[in-house]
Amino acid sequence: MPKRVDHDERRRQISEALWRIAATRGLDGASLRDVAAEAGISLGRLQHYFTSKDEMFVFALDYISGLAERRIRERVQALPGTPAPRDILRHCLVEMLPLDDESRAGNLVQVAYYARAVHDARTRRHAQEGVPALRDFFAAQVRHAVERGEVDPERVPEDEAMLLLALADGLTSFALLDVYAPAEALRLIDRHLAGLFSYNSSPRSSGSKRS
Amino acid sequence: MPKRVDHDERRRQISEALWRIAATRGLDGASLRDVAAEAGISLGRLQHYFTSKDEMFVFALDYISGLAERRIRERVQALPGTPAPRDILRHCLVEMLPLDDESRAGNLVQVAYYARAVHDARTRRHAQEGVPALRDFFAAQVRHAVERGEVDPERVPEDEAMLLLALADGLTSFALLDVYAPAEALRLIDRHLAGLFSYNSSPRSSGSKRS
Repeated sequence: MPKRVDHDERRRQISEALWRIAATRGLDGASLRDVAAEAGISLGRLQHYFTSKDEMFVFALDYISGLAERRIRERVQALPGTPAPRDILRHCLVEMLPLDDESRAGNLVQVAYYARAVHDARTRRHAQEGVPALRDFFAAQVRHAVERGEVDPERVPEDEAMLLLALADGLTSFALLDVYAPAEALRLIDRHLAGLFSYNSSPRSSGSKRS
Repeated sequence: MPKRVDHDERRRQISEALWRIAATRGLDGASLRDVAAEAGISLGRLQHYFTSKDEMFVFALDYISGLAERRIRERVQALPGTPAPRDILRHCLVEMLPLDDESRAGNLVQVAYYARAVHDARTRRHAQEGVPALRDFFAAQVRHAVERGEVDPERVPEDEAMLLLALADGLTSFALLDVYAPAEALRLIDRHLAGLFSYNSSPRSSGSKRS
């Protein structure tokens, strides 16, 4: 068991090195050697864990996703009572936008991943598993909101989920390009959520499930 | 004058070479020398036109934007009568999605640009000028639709414009990653447009301005 923990710790250390490079100068020209140097280990040692840049990328992305998931769970659990679907969705979306240094760094790793994945089918698989999983989670929240009478039952939960994910993705791009301030991106997400949650025909929406 | 035309022709030729590389293996590791080889000219000749990769990128993006603009103008002009704001917006959005090989290639150049621009303030300037210009054009269409009674006057045209741009951007990412088929992306754009254009309190929306 202790050996296993060491390996995980080493992979985490390498992921964080990759992350620091992504957040500052980008991963475009960064070699495995550069990442090893940033992590303070030898190239040989790094290659013991990752044989290719793509493999390292995917691990770093999983690591970032894991951290983001934990942050979301903590935020949602900190909400009083049973959190409403709208609050859960908003917390997830807040976590996706580059509103602080940590999520900005995570987003920059994703940009580097994205630029590689559009040209490499194997690397793309990470997104092909991750995005539908996130869509299903979002769709479940929208479905729950429909049941609570907060969202128009005419809306298709899976479509609304994809629209939310695409919006967050596009607004993140504009924020990373300094076209738009991250706070403005959040304001637009809130505007979109307000439209989605504008339905209130049912008395169940008055909050009986809260607190 | 003929000399000038030659220069433009040469720059176009180089842009198209850059484009072909972007659309196939990506620009990540592509050097100026690679682009020169693809364009069938010497490195020295290429450097006569572009001294850096970033300069070449920005030119190629402008070239692509120009082509896309012309395609949109042609599509809109082919519509019968005076085109409605909704039709104009939809044609622009269709042009932005990777629905055919040409726009897919253009999108892949943009991905390569994006991955560089997040780390380089000078390169970012292209997006910082282009995105607000597009937002203003979209906002003008939404404002026109509000005047025609087709969009709720409570909506803020600039915000709706940014939401549309962000949506198209995010859906393009998912399409390029094969997470979602391009046709599905268009279906979601149509769903979002249907929501935006669901207002019809005014008799002006019945089409008196058409044909």
